[in-house]
Amino acid sequence: MSQARLMDGTALARRIVEETARKAAELTDRTGTAPCLATVLVGEDPASVTYVRMKQNRCRKAGIDSRRVALPAETTTEELVGTLRSLSQDPSVHGILLQHPVGEHIDERAAFEAIAPEKDVDGVTFASFATMSFGLPGFVSCTPGGILRLLDAYDVDLAGKRAVVVGRSAILGKPVGMLLLARDATVTYCHSRTRELSSVVREADVVVAAVGRPRLVRGQDIKPGAVVIDAGYNEGNVGDVDFDSAVERASLITPVPGGVGPMTIATLLEQTVDAAARQLGV
Amino acid sequence: MSQARLMDGTALARRIVEETARKAAELTDRTGTAPCLATVLVGEDPASVTYVRMKQNRCRKAGIDSRRVALPAETTTEELVGTLRSLSQDPSVHGILLQHPVGEHIDERAAFEAIAPEKDVDGVTFASFATMSFGLPGFVSCTPGGILRLLDAYDVDLAGKRAVVVGRSAILGKPVGMLLLARDATVTYCHSRTRELSSVVREADVVVAAVGRPRLVRGQDIKPGAVVIDAGYNEGNVGDVDFDSAVERASLITPVPGGVGPMTIATLLEQTVDAAARQLGV
Repeated sequence: MSQARLMDGTALARRIVEETARKAAELTDRTGTAPCLATVLVGEDPASVTYVRMKQNRCRKAGIDSRRVALPAETTTEELVGTLRSLSQDPSVHGILLQHPVGEHIDERAAFEAIAPEKDVDGVTFASFATMSFGLPGFVSCTPGGILRLLDAYDVDLAGKRAVVVGRSAILGKPVGMLLLARDATVTYCHSRTRELSSVVREADVVVAAVGRPRLVRGQDIKPGAVVIDAGYNEGNVGDVDFDSAVERASLITPVPGGVGPMTIATLLEQTVDAAARQLGV
Repeated sequence: MSQARLMDGTALARRIVEETARKAAELTDRTGTAPCLATVLVGEDPASVTYVRMKQNRCRKAGIDSRRVALPAETTTEELVGTLRSLSQDPSVHGILLQHPVGEHIDERAAFEAIAPEKDVDGVTFASFATMSFGLPGFVSCTPGGILRLLDAYDVDLAGKRAVVVGRSAILGKPVGMLLLARDATVTYCHSRTRELSSVVREADVVVAAVGRPRLVRGQDIKPGAVVIDAGYNEGNVGDVDFDSAVERASLITPVPGGVGPMTIATLLEQTVDAAARQLGV
C-alpha cells in the first residue's frame, strides 16, 4: 500500500492567516479601530509566557492589536474574574484569551465563565461548548475548529462516516467529537477506560487522537485508508499517533509538528477578527 | 435464551417521588416556604396543556407549589424572555419549566437562556448542558438524568462498557451520551445519517434509543445480554425498540410505557426540591 498523503497544516494556516490579515486591515481602514485581543496570564510559568508572547507576535503580524494583562501568581479567583469581567465590558477589546494553566488555587471554570461569549475567541465558555454541540453560531475551541478546517481543506466527507475521538477533554476531545457529530459523522468517544482501544479505533474512517499519550495509536490500529488526525503533542515533537507505522495505512495523516498545531493559532486569529467585525458592526 | 428482566421505571420513580416529598415537607417545615416550580406555557396546544396540568398535579402531591404562567400564542420572543427573566429573579420561584414547543415564531434558545442556571430544573440551558458534559455540579436534562438513575438502580456497571446512543437531540440524545461518557462508558452517537445502524448497535453493551422512530431497533440488532433503554415515545404506546424481539436478546430492558417515562417527571420534581433547598440556604 502506498504512503498516506500529508495534511499540511502549516500551509493551510498560512493561507488563513493571510486572509485574516486582509480582513483585519480592511476593518481597521473602515472603522479606524484595529481588532484587539486581550491575553490574560496569571503567574510566570515559562512555557505560558512563551505561548503568550508567540500569540502576541502572530497577532501583530496579522494586524491585530494585543493587550497583555499579566497578573501575579497569587491572584485570587475573585480578582481574575473581576479582570475578565472588565475586559468583557471594555469596548476596545474584541477577544479575550485566558492562558491555561491559571494555578491550582484558582477556579478556572469561574474565570472562563467571566468571559463574555461574544469575546470568547478561544471557545472555552459553557456557551461556546453548547453552540458547538448544537451546531449553532458561536465561537469554536481553536484546536477542534482548526481540525475541522483541515478536514474540509482536504475534502474529507464526514457525513455517515465513522469517526473515533481518542480523548475527552473539555477543550479538545469533547468539542471535536461534537463538531464531527454536527457534520453527520457517527462519533465514538474513547478514553483511558475504553477496553480494546485498538479494535475500536480500527472501526474508524476518521481517527482523532487527542489524549496526550505518545504514540498511543499505532499503524496496526488503523483501518487501511482511514484519515488520521494527530492532535497530541508530547515532549520531543511526538504526537499521539505512531507516525511511521500509521503513514503506511492511512490515506491522509497530519504530521507532528506542522499538522494540527498551526491550525490552532490561525483559528484564534480568525475568530478574533470575526469578533471585532461583529462588535464594530461591520 | 431467557427473557430480559424488565426495568421498572414506575416503581423506581415512585420511590424517588416519595423521598422527594419527604424532603419537600422537611424543607417547608424548616423554612416556612414550600418549594415552587413555575411552569410557563405559550399558547393552548392541547397536549402541552395536558402535560403542564399533569406536572402541576404531580408537584402538588409531592408538596411542591406550582405557579402556572399561561401566555397567549402570539407572545413574542422578547415578551417570553422578559417573563423568564422575571421568574429567574423572583425569590419565591425555585425552579422554572418552559413547556416545549413554544411556537415557530419564538426563538426557543433565547427563551431557554433567559432561565437562570440555578433554577433550570429541566436542564435546558447551555450551562446545564455543559455541566452535564463536563461532569460538573448542575442540573441534568430530566430524561437523560432519569435514565442514569434507572441504570444505577439496576446496578449496570458503565465503566469501560460500550454504549450506543441512537439520536442526537439537544434535550435527550446528546446529553445522555455525555452523562454516559462522564461515567466512563465508551460512547457512540448514531443518527439518521449513520450507515449500517444495526451493526453499530450490535457493538453495544448498553443501547439508548432516543430518536422517535417506532420500533427502529429490533431484537436482531441487539448483542445478547445487552441493556436496552427505550427512551422513544411514539403514537400508540410504541417505543423506538421492537420490544417483543428485543426482550428475547437483552438482559435488562425498559418497557414502554412504564420504563423511562416516569423517571423524567421524578427527576424534575427531585431537582426542583434540590433547587429550593439550595436557594433557601438549607
